[in-house]
Amino acid sequence: MDREKLRVLLEALQDGEMTVGEAMESFRRLPFEDLGFAKLDTHRSIRRGFPEVVYCPGKTPGQVALILQSLSRDADRVLATRAESEVFDAVKEQISEAELAYFPEARLILVGSPAPPERGQVVVATAGTSDRPVAEEAAVTCEVLGNRTTRLYDVGVAGLHRLLDQRELLEEAEVVIVVAGMEGALPSAVAGLIEAPVIAVPTSVGYGASFDGLAALLAMMNTCVPGVVVVNVDNGFGAGFFANLINAG
Amino acid sequence: MDREKLRVLLEALQDGEMTVGEAMESFRRLPFEDLGFAKLDTHRSIRRGFPEVVYCPGKTPGQVALILQSLSRDADRVLATRAESEVFDAVKEQISEAELAYFPEARLILVGSPAPPERGQVVVATAGTSDRPVAEEAAVTCEVLGNRTTRLYDVGVAGLHRLLDQRELLEEAEVVIVVAGMEGALPSAVAGLIEAPVIAVPTSVGYGASFDGLAALLAMMNTCVPGVVVVNVDNGFGAGFFANLINAG
Amino acid sequence: MDREKLRVLLEALQDGEMTVGEAMESFRRLPFEDLGFAKLDTHRSIRRGFPEVVYCPGKTPGQVALILQSLSRDADRVLATRAESEVFDAVKEQISEAELAYFPEARLILVGSPAPPERGQVVVATAGTSDRPVAEEAAVTCEVLGNRTTRLYDVGVAGLHRLLDQRELLEEAEVVIVVAGMEGALPSAVAGLIEAPVIAVPTSVGYGASFDGLAALLAMMNTCVPGVVVVNVDNGFGAGFFANLINAG
Amino acid sequence: MDREKLRVLLEALQDGEMTVGEAMESFRRLPFEDLGFAKLDTHRSIRRGFPEVVYCPGKTPGQVALILQSLSRDADRVLATRAESEVFDAVKEQISEAELAYFPEARLILVGSPAPPERGQVVVATAGTSDRPVAEEAAVTCEVLGNRTTRLYDVGVAGLHRLLDQRELLEEAEVVIVVAGMEGALPSAVAGLIEAPVIAVPTSVGYGASFDGLAALLAMMNTCVPGVVVVNVDNGFGAGFFANLINAG
Amino acid sequence: MDREKLRVLLEALQDGEMTVGEAMESFRRLPFEDLGFAKLDTHRSIRRGFPEVVYCPGKTPGQVALILQSLSRDADRVLATRAESEVFDAVKEQISEAELAYFPEARLILVGSPAPPERGQVVVATAGTSDRPVAEEAAVTCEVLGNRTTRLYDVGVAGLHRLLDQRELLEEAEVVIVVAGMEGALPSAVAGLIEAPVIAVPTSVGYGASFDGLAALLAMMNTCVPGVVVVNVDNGFGAGFFANLINAG
Amino acid sequence: MDREKLRVLLEALQDGEMTVGEAMESFRRLPFEDLGFAKLDTHRSIRRGFPEVVYCPGKTPGQVALILQSLSRDADRVLATRAESEVFDAVKEQISEAELAYFPEARLILVGSPAPPERGQVVVATAGTSDRPVAEEAAVTCEVLGNRTTRLYDVGVAGLHRLLDQRELLEEAEVVIVVAGMEGALPSAVAGLIEAPVIAVPTSVGYGASFDGLAALLAMMNTCVPGVVVVNVDNGFGAGFFANLINAG
Amino acid sequence: MDREKLRVLLEALQDGEMTVGEAMESFRRLPFEDLGFAKLDTHRSIRRGFPEVVYCPGKTPGQVALILQSLSRDADRVLATRAESEVFDAVKEQISEAELAYFPEARLILVGSPAPPERGQVVVATAGTSDRPVAEEAAVTCEVLGNRTTRLYDVGVAGLHRLLDQRELLEEAEVVIVVAGMEGALPSAVAGLIEAPVIAVPTSVGYGASFDGLAALLAMMNTCVPGVVVVNVDNGFGAGFFANLINAG
Amino acid sequence: MDREKLRVLLEALQDGEMTVGEAMESFRRLPFEDLGFAKLDTHRSIRRGFPEVVYCPGKTPGQVALILQSLSRDADRVLATRAESEVFDAVKEQISEAELAYFPEARLILVGSPAPPERGQVVVATAGTSDRPVAEEAAVTCEVLGNRTTRLYDVGVAGLHRLLDQRELLEEAEVVIVVAGMEGALPSAVAGLIEAPVIAVPTSVGYGASFDGLAALLAMMNTCVPGVVVVNVDNGFGAGFFANLINAG
Repeated sequence: MDREKLRVLLEALQDGEMTVGEAMESFRRLPFEDLGFAKLDTHRSIRRGFPEVVYCPGKTPGQVALILQSLSRDADRVLATRAESEVFDAVKEQISEAELAYFPEARLILVGSPAPPERGQVVVATAGTSDRPVAEEAAVTCEVLGNRTTRLYDVGVAGLHRLLDQRELLEEAEVVIVVAGMEGALPSAVAGLIEAPVIAVPTSVGYGASFDGLAALLAMMNTCVPGVVVVNVDNGFGAGFFANLINAG
Repeated sequence: MDREKLRVLLEALQDGEMTVGEAMESFRRLPFEDLGFAKLDTHRSIRRGFPEVVYCPGKTPGQVALILQSLSRDADRVLATRAESEVFDAVKEQISEAELAYFPEARLILVGSPAPPERGQVVVATAGTSDRPVAEEAAVTCEVLGNRTTRLYDVGVAGLHRLLDQRELLEEAEVVIVVAGMEGALPSAVAGLIEAPVIAVPTSVGYGASFDGLAALLAMMNTCVPGVVVVNVDNGFGAGFFANLINAG
Repeated sequence: MDREKLRVLLEALQDGEMTVGEAMESFRRLPFEDLGFAKLDTHRSIRRGFPEVVYCPGKTPGQVALILQSLSRDADRVLATRAESEVFDAVKEQISEAELAYFPEARLILVGSPAPPERGQVVVATAGTSDRPVAEEAAVTCEVLGNRTTRLYDVGVAGLHRLLDQRELLEEAEVVIVVAGMEGALPSAVAGLIEAPVIAVPTSVGYGASFDGLAALLAMMNTCVPGVVVVNVDNGFGAGFFANLINAG
Repeated sequence: MDREKLRVLLEALQDGEMTVGEAMESFRRLPFEDLGFAKLDTHRSIRRGFPEVVYCPGKTPGQVALILQSLSRDADRVLATRAESEVFDAVKEQISEAELAYFPEARLILVGSPAPPERGQVVVATAGTSDRPVAEEAAVTCEVLGNRTTRLYDVGVAGLHRLLDQRELLEEAEVVIVVAGMEGALPSAVAGLIEAPVIAVPTSVGYGASFDGLAALLAMMNTCVPGVVVVNVDNGFGAGFFANLINAG
Repeated sequence: MDREKLRVLLEALQDGEMTVGEAMESFRRLPFEDLGFAKLDTHRSIRRGFPEVVYCPGKTPGQVALILQSLSRDADRVLATRAESEVFDAVKEQISEAELAYFPEARLILVGSPAPPERGQVVVATAGTSDRPVAEEAAVTCEVLGNRTTRLYDVGVAGLHRLLDQRELLEEAEVVIVVAGMEGALPSAVAGLIEAPVIAVPTSVGYGASFDGLAALLAMMNTCVPGVVVVNVDNGFGAGFFANLINAG
Repeated sequence: MDREKLRVLLEALQDGEMTVGEAMESFRRLPFEDLGFAKLDTHRSIRRGFPEVVYCPGKTPGQVALILQSLSRDADRVLATRAESEVFDAVKEQISEAELAYFPEARLILVGSPAPPERGQVVVATAGTSDRPVAEEAAVTCEVLGNRTTRLYDVGVAGLHRLLDQRELLEEAEVVIVVAGMEGALPSAVAGLIEAPVIAVPTSVGYGASFDGLAALLAMMNTCVPGVVVVNVDNGFGAGFFANLINAG
Repeated sequence: MDREKLRVLLEALQDGEMTVGEAMESFRRLPFEDLGFAKLDTHRSIRRGFPEVVYCPGKTPGQVALILQSLSRDADRVLATRAESEVFDAVKEQISEAELAYFPEARLILVGSPAPPERGQVVVATAGTSDRPVAEEAAVTCEVLGNRTTRLYDVGVAGLHRLLDQRELLEEAEVVIVVAGMEGALPSAVAGLIEAPVIAVPTSVGYGASFDGLAALLAMMNTCVPGVVVVNVDNGFGAGFFANLINAG
Repeated sequence: MDREKLRVLLEALQDGEMTVGEAMESFRRLPFEDLGFAKLDTHRSIRRGFPEVVYCPGKTPGQVALILQSLSRDADRVLATRAESEVFDAVKEQISEAELAYFPEARLILVGSPAPPERGQVVVATAGTSDRPVAEEAAVTCEVLGNRTTRLYDVGVAGLHRLLDQRELLEEAEVVIVVAGMEGALPSAVAGLIEAPVIAVPTSVGYGASFDGLAALLAMMNTCVPGVVVVNVDNGFGAGFFANLINAG
């Protein structure tokens, strides 16, 4: 309920166009019952180009298909994350009216077409080969949302030269997403080299005292280098989405 | 050491005003006794306007003062974080040649002058009054780095209307920093309302099962809203620094 | 052993109807050997209408069937929780004399008929779709025990308007059960809007640093809003049962 | 600001005794500078009789005093929790216009007068003597909000007879708050004896593997007895507040 | 190798029926290729009547069978714990010369015959039905080692009268083993009633915040009742073995 | 209240020297205002020789002194644990009628005289010198309760020969209490050498990843040697009390 | 970039063989873009004889085969760790040009031939039989890298004599690797006996409060014996590799 | 008990110089009661040059002084760790007959003279300035034991060039000790650059989610680079001691 609406209401009361009872009732109904929020939501989706997103675990393939169908009516593109191939099968059967794509390593389904690659460069780096699925989730998310995206995989701190050899690439990025499991040291090393913001994604890659990514998560949280933020373990989508927000700024 | 100073030095060598031995000695004296890297470092400081930063705990006031003095010779502004007032006293005594400011609630010392407020709007929101010191660390960092900064304190989810009343302010922000302890729910609530990126800062405010901010940290990590990243518990500086990076993009 | 029984005993001693040895023996036998407790138990079940409950994991379908048969002889209704469909198959075979119902999403078996819906309104809200099974366990428990029950699913803090749109419904509830995984922020948001007591149920929905519901549990424990209590992760039954207790008060 | 005050204000506007500008200014001064919500807030305070509450840690005595003064203008009673005696000294100096009380063991300050004891019986039980401060926080909260309140201290499971002797008292309670540290077994034992809802409060009493109340918290979470809910470690106020909500139902 | 066998061997050497080389070879063949310790080991087995024990997980059925065969040559009885039925099948095939028994619920294999029940009374109590397998491991261990053993199952604190009704039985025990998952409250309750030592066995029964028995373990560790000690989660054998040690004292 | 006092009271009632009202009043004054239980309690104290125990933390010196005074009226000996010297000062002032002793390293106060040393041998072993205070709490508890007690300090696994040199002493013990911090390995090593039951006491001695005794606690819980049970971190009293129970068997 | 190269570069500038612009460009390209790092890597592999290593989990058998083929072109020997037999099948199919070996218990694949056993003695000890797979990973790694390696399995602290009997063997070792799960006490016991460095490997062997090796890890971390270092849970390869480094010193 | 002694004993029996009873008695007394172990200990100290070490916390200054005096009689040098200056004062007063040194930053006391610096090069590196005290403990330990020792402080991953500039120094080391708090990434980065073994020392430097060094500890445990082992948080002495062992090999 904005200041203007309040003034109009109060003036209507002053002018006798409204009774005190009606005014009080208006106060009761405002401001959450209006359509403003839903409207804003759609507006946001259209203006900035980021889709509604469906998280698949805990939903049947059929449910995902229906939700995607419904959401895709009002959106240029909709993503489903953590989608196994059988989910995509169900989606293909359900949705015929829209362009569809499945990214198996990223486990992403895209309904609609990717945004044109008009945004700045995002580099998605991984420490190791096993971090690829999470990195792909991040990279495909970036691409689908219109960010120019470069993959820089397997540049972990075990061989710093691999990383240092790519310094120029890293320096040209608008945002760098760094995906690492085990000791999670790569985000700090990358952030120490460049000026762009770094989004760190811990992965559950590791064993023993990695505690399914907790070790990497804590390490990234405690980075001694400013310019690093962290998302949840294995949350490649979240990192890609945030990178896009920065690029959209 | 900026690009200009390097050129002057090299030209002096070329012009025979300096011997190779003197040139090498000059390189030795640069921050890390090596040219290439220090150059990059200072180059970064000049171009993007973010200062070197000194983390005070574990250093004596005298040590902090000396480090700040040294760093401030080549930088427009240098910050010291988590600085108690006695540290500032030591700095005042040591440094006479530069502008100085102390922000007691934020526990920040600024050597040099703030950057002009030419960057986009950062909103720093807190859930409660007790989160203020961390929020001030974030806000002052933003301000010092040249971001227009608005504080929006005490808008926790216990009274959502306080937050919703400020939706317009939030919607106009380029970045929102959300500082919260206890259950750490505010970043999710804010991110659900706006399109701008949200940097979540868990605080150690709370008791019992808050485990010194762990509960808030985990909550923020697990946000169901895309567009949220997290920094370490009580790390207001890190959030402010990252917000500035986004704004500088 | 109540005060009256003590007086009777002491008077018997005084009156010589009992020897000191007999009195001492009586003290030894009292008060736990009497049947009072078991009796009270049955009485409770009859008077307040809540059933004995059987927790199925760790019991064979056949064992569950026998226990339910035995309990249902003295009770209007008996529940079995976390019952997979094969358990219900075994129960159907065993019990022919009583009304039976199986709620697959809630994994509940009801032997007997639900209590008439004479109690006040319970709203069961969830943050997301994946929280439904836990929410159904809560909701069916409430219904079976005679509470008018409304489901309000998928109103998580990612889109506060979904929640705010239902404020009237929430305000009319006697009790609200809020089921949420991930960051577990919804109970705080709901409790900030209404006056009724909120029972928070963390769920194991999430991944990475959700640690199977620990993040949500800690968040709910640390709510900054008074009027929230918490039950175990995924304990929909416990929440429904407690809501009924409040409504019965 | 209660419903009556709103009506008076609106009627003054309608009657021309107040301009639209003045009305808007009045709304500005309301707690959150917005009508609808603040109205709800104060409305709630009046109708259900529970006060605004100030959590003292992290605020100076002077700040607490000012906040209490401000809140107490529109409320019959306001509580401050975790208030050390020097906070009360500051409050006494600041507030002269209202009745004041300090409960040192509970560390509660009451501004205003307690509600008349018209609500049902709450029993506050503790396992040990060291749990008293938390229990007092719960008990005084209940009393101040108008609940008839009985203390039943030091009835831990080490001597079950102490508990069983009080079964009658427990059975007559509308709600029982059970406060326990160490192994946190008492809530289960109490809930097994009675029909009323049990609010379990873990305390940080203990040492070693009690991990400042975590052991008790986990135990209470895992109670095998339905009818138990849990609040944060040492959160006596939260338990008392919730008990009052149940009693108010 | 018992004391008698050693004497025979040494006398054979003394009598010239055996060479020093042969004697040393005999020592080599003893379990640990060294006399003194093996002697002690077997000596212990004979004097106190407790067997060598084989922990099956991580060994193939065949390996277990061979180890049992070897150990049973010098011992009256040998136990294998956590033995699935296929392990017993392998043992039956391997060992024909000795008495064999398999206890499926306890997952124990006994090679040899149980010790005669000449030791004092051990009561094995459980909180719930799901704790039975662990309790059986404890109870069968006690029986096999010659302790008179009584099972008292399903007497959890949810219905204290079930426990109190059995006070006489408990009071007559020399040792009580209490097996409980979830909140792990039963050992405290039992120990508060009796004088005999209580061995608490946390079980992994539970869900959510039980963290596979951690909640019960911590609760038992923090018991407020003296006279309680704790063994590892699900370690029924360890509890039974210790009870036998006490009884043997 | 012992059996004799009960008999005297009942006979007084029988003989008319006391009215039923007076008898009931006497029962009221007994520790828990109920006969049967208090009787049991005191009966236990007399028969088995272990005292009531007062845990001092969280009580004022004055409170401890009053409780000890009250308890010592009906008991031969009463212990107070974790008693700082100022507590003992208060006790000395309060109690003049009984024998008193203070054990500063053990932080124990004994009111009354120790039981005669008629029970079997308890060895209290420590891994290091820093474990002494906890070991003393255990050892003094044993001595006060009448157990012959031998200290064997500083025999940690860093120098196994120190332990092995004392094998004879260990083999003669009825019970061995092993007190160790850091890696908590000593109980396993001791239990591997002897037949007697071992009570393991983790201590908070250590730093870093010892997490205040958690490392030692977990190690002891996971001992591969049967015959070991564990008490809470630093719980020397609990270990001594349990050793006495075993010896009393 | 070494000091000499810098001098050459500066002299070239001084001598006019290079412009200031070219010199500045050289600084930009140096020192990370040169081939030095990769070259060093190969050099290291050749000179010291330790292979590149491939961690198999998260890679398909085909990927592992290709990586091994590629790496083995430039190395005498390459290891793949945690390789299931189907991985070896894929490797056999892919690589025909090199010697191959598979160690099933160690789950190691060796491409190439082992180094000749010219290095000092490594003893690999385990506490129990279940620790063998991890120990084999360590032992085979040592052997393949040219260390004389002796296995000493099943010498846990439950029977210290087994360990003490092998003191001579242990004393002759250059390095001892100690592999243990459960309470993880063996490394301390071994290190107390010998002078050689001890590498402790916690294993996930155990149950209940072993928390998949965390208990053993913490115990080893907290060893009271100097001369012990720790690697990750189940990281036999890491221990073997480090032992080889020490032996290579 | 060695093989030779056994042969002698058996031959004595064979030859009739010993009775069977005497032989059996000899077996009882062997092998732990002999003086071999203590002797070995002293021998070790003399031969290899590493001292007995006294851990000061939990001991009074006087106790430390006495222990040092006693140990220093038979050793060339003795260390005391974590010694505050008042401990050194007490030592100075007690010990006059030996050379003494105090290293305040390392908190080490040396009784006796350092070993001559005849061993290979140890580099002690730190990530930050706050890690210095732990690094000094490691470095002084190395020096005192006769290792040539170079400090390389403040080369954390935030500025990799600082580290890379020192690659030559690192490559010449026999062992590198890497001391780091916060995210603990430096050991991986160092180990990726060099061939020498790396001993990682996590420190408690950090805040928030560093959990007093746990984050660094976990990170180091999970290093993806072979050739890294870990000691306890802040355990500089342990790292220095182990480095010396490697160098002594």
